[in-house]
Amino acid sequence: MITLLTDFGLQDIYVGVMKGIIKTINPDIDIIDLTHNIPPQNIIAASFALASAVDFFPDDTIHLAIVDPTVGSDRKIVAIAFEKGYIICPNNGIITGVLNKYQPQQVYELTNSNYWLNHNPSNTFHGRDIFAPMTAYLSKGIGLETLGHNLNQEDLVILDDINPIIKEKEIIGSIQYVDIYGNLITNIPSKMLENKSWYVQEGDNKIFPQSTYSNIKKKELLTLIGSHGYVEIAINQGNAKMILNKEYGDFITVKIE
Amino acid sequence: MITLLTDFGLQDIYVGVMKGIIKTINPDIDIIDLTHNIPPQNIIAASFALASAVDFFPDDTIHLAIVDPTVGSDRKIVAIAFEKGYIICPNNGIITGVLNKYQPQQVYELTNSNYWLNHNPSNTFHGRDIFAPMTAYLSKGIGLETLGHNLNQEDLVILDDINPIIKEKEIIGSIQYVDIYGNLITNIPSKMLENKSWYVQEGDNKIFPQSTYSNIKKKELLTLIGSHGYVEIAINQGNAKMILNKEYGDFITVKIE
Amino acid sequence: MITLLTDFGLQDIYVGVMKGIIKTINPDIDIIDLTHNIPPQNIIAASFALASAVDFFPDDTIHLAIVDPTVGSDRKIVAIAFEKGYIICPNNGIITGVLNKYQPQQVYELTNSNYWLNHNPSNTFHGRDIFAPMTAYLSKGIGLETLGHNLNQEDLVILDDINPIIKEKEIIGSIQYVDIYGNLITNIPSKMLENKSWYVQEGDNKIFPQSTYSNIKKKELLTLIGSHGYVEIAINQGNAKMILNKEYGDFITVKIE
Repeated sequence: MITLLTDFGLQDIYVGVMKGIIKTINPDIDIIDLTHNIPPQNIIAASFALASAVDFFPDDTIHLAIVDPTVGSDRKIVAIAFEKGYIICPNNGIITGVLNKYQPQQVYELTNSNYWLNHNPSNTFHGRDIFAPMTAYLSKGIGLETLGHNLNQEDLVILDDINPIIKEKEIIGSIQYVDIYGNLITNIPSKMLENKSWYVQEGDNKIFPQSTYSNIKKKELLTLIGSHGYVEIAINQGNAKMILNKEYGDFITVKIE
Repeated sequence: MITLLTDFGLQDIYVGVMKGIIKTINPDIDIIDLTHNIPPQNIIAASFALASAVDFFPDDTIHLAIVDPTVGSDRKIVAIAFEKGYIICPNNGIITGVLNKYQPQQVYELTNSNYWLNHNPSNTFHGRDIFAPMTAYLSKGIGLETLGHNLNQEDLVILDDINPIIKEKEIIGSIQYVDIYGNLITNIPSKMLENKSWYVQEGDNKIFPQSTYSNIKKKELLTLIGSHGYVEIAINQGNAKMILNKEYGDFITVKIE
Repeated sequence: MITLLTDFGLQDIYVGVMKGIIKTINPDIDIIDLTHNIPPQNIIAASFALASAVDFFPDDTIHLAIVDPTVGSDRKIVAIAFEKGYIICPNNGIITGVLNKYQPQQVYELTNSNYWLNHNPSNTFHGRDIFAPMTAYLSKGIGLETLGHNLNQEDLVILDDINPIIKEKEIIGSIQYVDIYGNLITNIPSKMLENKSWYVQEGDNKIFPQSTYSNIKKKELLTLIGSHGYVEIAINQGNAKMILNKEYGDFITVKIE
């Protein structure tokens, strides 16, 4: 199985064309869309979304993730093999979230132009000309060692501001994802708060944790451990992003009592 | 075959993850998206959309419909078997439209946590943790009697304001769906108007029925029996919802001459 | 394989229902979405998108393309067989881009109502009632000669303003597609500019060609041969459509030095 995660949107034929190429090379492969609506060029959001998804797919799934602001430059195309399957992506940090959860078993740079769509790829749509065919060939059994060459894990670009800062009585995290409901998902994982009494300090407000959205009155703020396993700030039947005027990367302080 | 109808949107990975879980359990099953853009928490729209779709799928299709404002509360998860296959949904009225067309053959509450993703589901994403795996197991041949226990049909929550009021010379219906074009689809079925001369009274305007959108001048109002089989108000190459400033649930009066 | 290209959007169940009908008739067929977000009734955009996609699919793919402002009128439904497979569409010009690249091998009007969903199709949703079932039957091996009758190629409606005007020192093209990033894709193909020194004259500005978006400073205008093979105007990490206030059909002048 192949999954696709991009910021290409669903207005144009970009995604459909990638599927056509994959199916031309490997007609029997299943293709599942993770999402194509990652905010444009937002690598932090892509890293979070990819890491949140990989647990729920069959082993040996190949996840192709393309958010690629520097397409056409000399940024590398990389692939890792890991416990759950494979990731193929530009080497720009998008893989950070997965590496926080899984140890890569193999790390490759994909360079073999014999497995591109053709030898004259466009400079602007590597998804079609390079990523899609290479992913399809991997799904057909062409090995990473044929598609490219070994890298060291240290060659993988990692987002460096993706982890929270832990102090004695507080954790300073940041927003790593905003979902369609405007829920603000931080980078503070539930395991940092196990068996602790905590709340979110937002300006002068203390926002206390709930077990689910509907536990409080309509339009009131709450925090909870969301379904992704991170501290999340939400409004019951409302949009926390808009009410709190928060964005990707903004800091969120959790106080521990 | 499994279909999915939700209000999860296509921005996030929620839908993709559900598909990953289903395919992990039943790799060979086909999954078709009905829509994931039901207006948030709009059970009337979901009921209409689901009922409009089920006729057009193969027998034995399993339709998973999740619009679930009270996820994490004690609302039940239910399944029915009917002539065309199965519906799985929260017990909140979303099944109303289907029950207006089909008699359920079996009604079950799904409770067997052995068929959940794991025994500690999140409170906020039952689509992933409960609905998706149970739907996949049903598609694999695990029977409803194993997934849960029998209910009476009267235990199904039904939307009670979904039928029009019939008077001597008029029918007072309401808007049960607004499509992407802004067409206003009422709850007045074509069979109520068979062999009758009728029009829609909207304020001081009489809107007369046409056979298709392009029968009248551009930007003019019309009414017609739409493709779903209900009285629909539209504007040729325009947006009736915006021009008439109408919303879900607003009343529409059909006059019979 | 069947692909779908429409302006139906993804809010409603229209696309899902078409897939249900196709799968009922031919359960084993793969269905790939090209896009369902063609700007409403924009046949030029649909023609461009379809022509850009067909190269990248397996031979014998059936492309069903529905942008159909005059559904319910007496416009014909047509099909062509060509080197890469088949196109089925309303006869309204949507096929123009494909015919600029490929010679049709067969041209048919599809008329045989035995292969409709039923003999009483709606006037407003031929996608469901006529196009989807006929496409599915073609994919099952029912021949075009059974589904309808031969047409001459001259019977195909062609968009007549889709080609640029070539002068001695300039080419006057127009915008035939605007993608999700606001990139303005003209109808001037790269082959008209091979081995030439050229730039786009936009008001008093000269916009010079680059090899990729990130070659210039953020928010600056550039032009390039885009991944579709046409002259494209873009802004590095910005939206050219909004900044230049351009729309479909607007003229673009390329100067040749």
